[in-house]
Amino acid sequence: MINARVLIRPKEGILDAQGKAVEKALPALGFEGIEHVRVGRIVELRAENDERLQELCEKLLANPLIEDYEIEIA
Amino acid sequence: MINARVLIRPKEGILDAQGKAVEKALPALGFEGIEHVRVGRIVELRAENDERLQELCEKLLANPLIEDYEIEIA
Repeated sequence: MINARVLIRPKEGILDAQGKAVEKALPALGFEGIEHVRVGRIVELRAENDERLQELCEKLLANPLIEDYEIEIA
Repeated sequence: MINARVLIRPKEGILDAQGKAVEKALPALGFEGIEHVRVGRIVELRAENDERLQELCEKLLANPLIEDYEIEIA
């Protein structure tokens, strides 16, 4: 079995509503000097092998139209 | 400026509804041998320094009651 980690992020140029919401909340909480906030998802799983992980991302975990994904094998 | 990445995951023992939903969808899509699926969030940002990142996680990014977080500095 392998441990895999999939990072899923909004594509560059796609509105990242959660990231914008965080940026907007920062000043009211007293945080300065923090920028370029992007919020995505992380999916961790155990698999027998990595053969079909890309397909899994395309079909189930990510929306390839608006999201990029990156697979890391631990 | 530093690039930081915050990984936010449901604590062990806390129901991970998204992870369970993925696991349930796998057989219908023909995926076998994938288990222990956990879904969390990833927040990437640029900051002047890492001094207040832990505070940022506690106050805004994560819910420490039900989520663990991990800060990685790139």
